[in-house]
Amino acid sequence: MKIKSSFGPQYKEFEVGDIVFLAKDKPLKLTSGAEIKNFPLAYQTYGKLNEDKSNAILICHALTGDQYAASTHPITGKDGWWNFMIGKNKPIDTDKFFIISSNIIGGCMGSFGPKEINPKTNQAYGLNFPSVTINDMVHAQNLLIESFGISKLHAVIGGSTGGMQSLAWANLYPQKVNLIIPLATSYRHSPQNIAFHEVGRQAIMADPNWCEGKYFLERKCPTKGLAVARMTAHITYLSEVALQKKFGRNLQNKDNFSFGFDAEFQVESYLHHKGYSFVERFDANSYLYITKAVDYFDLEKDFGGKLSDAFISLAANPQAKVCLIAFSDDWLFPPSEAKKLTHALIACGINVSSIVIESAAGHDSFLIESAALRNTISGFLNC
Amino acid sequence: MKIKSSFGPQYKEFEVGDIVFLAKDKPLKLTSGAEIKNFPLAYQTYGKLNEDKSNAILICHALTGDQYAASTHPITGKDGWWNFMIGKNKPIDTDKFFIISSNIIGGCMGSFGPKEINPKTNQAYGLNFPSVTINDMVHAQNLLIESFGISKLHAVIGGSTGGMQSLAWANLYPQKVNLIIPLATSYRHSPQNIAFHEVGRQAIMADPNWCEGKYFLERKCPTKGLAVARMTAHITYLSEVALQKKFGRNLQNKDNFSFGFDAEFQVESYLHHKGYSFVERFDANSYLYITKAVDYFDLEKDFGGKLSDAFISLAANPQAKVCLIAFSDDWLFPPSEAKKLTHALIACGINVSSIVIESAAGHDSFLIESAALRNTISGFLNC
Repeated sequence: MKIKSSFGPQYKEFEVGDIVFLAKDKPLKLTSGAEIKNFPLAYQTYGKLNEDKSNAILICHALTGDQYAASTHPITGKDGWWNFMIGKNKPIDTDKFFIISSNIIGGCMGSFGPKEINPKTNQAYGLNFPSVTINDMVHAQNLLIESFGISKLHAVIGGSTGGMQSLAWANLYPQKVNLIIPLATSYRHSPQNIAFHEVGRQAIMADPNWCEGKYFLERKCPTKGLAVARMTAHITYLSEVALQKKFGRNLQNKDNFSFGFDAEFQVESYLHHKGYSFVERFDANSYLYITKAVDYFDLEKDFGGKLSDAFISLAANPQAKVCLIAFSDDWLFPPSEAKKLTHALIACGINVSSIVIESAAGHDSFLIESAALRNTISGFLNC
Repeated sequence: MKIKSSFGPQYKEFEVGDIVFLAKDKPLKLTSGAEIKNFPLAYQTYGKLNEDKSNAILICHALTGDQYAASTHPITGKDGWWNFMIGKNKPIDTDKFFIISSNIIGGCMGSFGPKEINPKTNQAYGLNFPSVTINDMVHAQNLLIESFGISKLHAVIGGSTGGMQSLAWANLYPQKVNLIIPLATSYRHSPQNIAFHEVGRQAIMADPNWCEGKYFLERKCPTKGLAVARMTAHITYLSEVALQKKFGRNLQNKDNFSFGFDAEFQVESYLHHKGYSFVERFDANSYLYITKAVDYFDLEKDFGGKLSDAFISLAANPQAKVCLIAFSDDWLFPPSEAKKLTHALIACGINVSSIVIESAAGHDSFLIESAALRNTISGFLNC
């Protein structure tokens, strides 16, 4: 099923890819207590499901990613964000695997999210949308998997927020997944990361065009606030070294300072571009909801401070294996947190591989093609 | 001379401390080429100038600091920001030294800045204020020192942006200063730091109450934008470890998530408080101008990529000594940058002491009392 959707400063329409309505018979109870039913979840698939339905891989996207992992984005026209990873003869080989790339609830690319129309009011949900958590996203993905008649996934793979989803899969559905590959992620969101998210949310809510979340009613868009939120976040996705290498203190199209408040340094122009292009493809309320979901994530606290208890059930799945991938210069989810996760998994007797890939690119390294990343994933999937 | 000034959301009046009008006869030429004359610079003094005027120490404040280093702040009513450092029997001993704590041009505590009245228009300068640099601030401070009849300072001391000023003193007036103590600073502002500053400026300029810098005309205040700018910056003043120790993932006055968008985590409440209390004491346009001044600072580029050339003239002052103080967990001005500075100073044959103080508090460590900090400064001043 395909539907049309719209948002952004121009409320441009675009066609959402595949979509399925879930929880038709039995509502899904969210962490907050709210119940949702017959809600849409958008996804893309690549490759073919084999007869015994044993070759399915679920791809979980990052905070502001989407289901277009290996297909053209309907708004930006750009290649999928993991094009180098998914396809024929690529690490996640479409000749061997059936890949389901799922959007998340709370998102804005066709799934149940705050910009969707509430049938009760005929208006976008806005802040009447229920709070969602990483666990809720995973429960919805489980219904998506069930809708394909798949009882067990060959693998769940995800980076950053997608990595949290993969860990939540290991915790919530330990018998339904064999291989788990969390990249550039953590067992919980740190106070510093919460702080950066909160600054972003404050920037959005400070924008008078946000209209207390009801911007749709007036066809406005909190463009400036959302752009500032994105700029802040974007700094955390890179590393100091990456910024130094990429831009240094170079000026943008000039030899000398102009002594004004337009972008003078290249790094400023770059941030402006990142901020304002983001607004074209992402909904401000979705940003609020999803960042909160990430902030809430804390597997350690969920298990009374004993992180390894989160994986006791996974240890009972004899086929379960985990491959944890961290990146040396990722200061959002530093290797030290992957190490703690590794120790917790080992403590349960789970078969775990753990690698720290040297990369100056920072957190975004999982989105950048490298031999180390390709080889790690292809090696683990085919071991 | 004392004057009254006002700004902030309520435009509350406050009495500025001592103030002097400088460049009465000969205008000061700024880096941008603009000339300013008969401009005010606010300062506070502690201790007594001795007969031969040889015991003066200049204190340079950080980005949003002010001249109230060791006296009550006229707006917040709080103690001076370096109260533990300056006073009788304290490391910077008022029984021995005459301490001049200078505000900076571009600031908002009585000095020549964008909120001051332009006599030509009878309105606040706003964006008609000229661009200022760290060098400009130091040239103004030199005039202040001359107004006391002081020909040579015993020491210049400053942290962060104040540290840049102390380095600019070493570069611009190498014969007029003996001891230089830069703390938590660098020879240039890094691309990552520029990026954080730019996000803050964008947040301010995105606030419709900023009114293109003319908020004074309508007695408005870009409260939300300035608060967001401060919140972003504040994260960079602390360390991940400090945030973890101070707040962890603790909730604010509740046991469970409320699943809303008010502050839920303690770290969020803390940031809100830091952001909104800042607005009461700082002017938004000053924030724009001063952050730009810091972004422009690049002693290495000023000397054609050879940092040590910045200190050649200082090396000709036989009494010159530098004590560089960095803090282990400062990720805004990491110890690696102090190391590079140390090497450049050594390359000129300058007498330099360099210390990295272990502190989990991050960049703000120079504002926090510690035995290591007290002993280092008092030891160096009395050696």
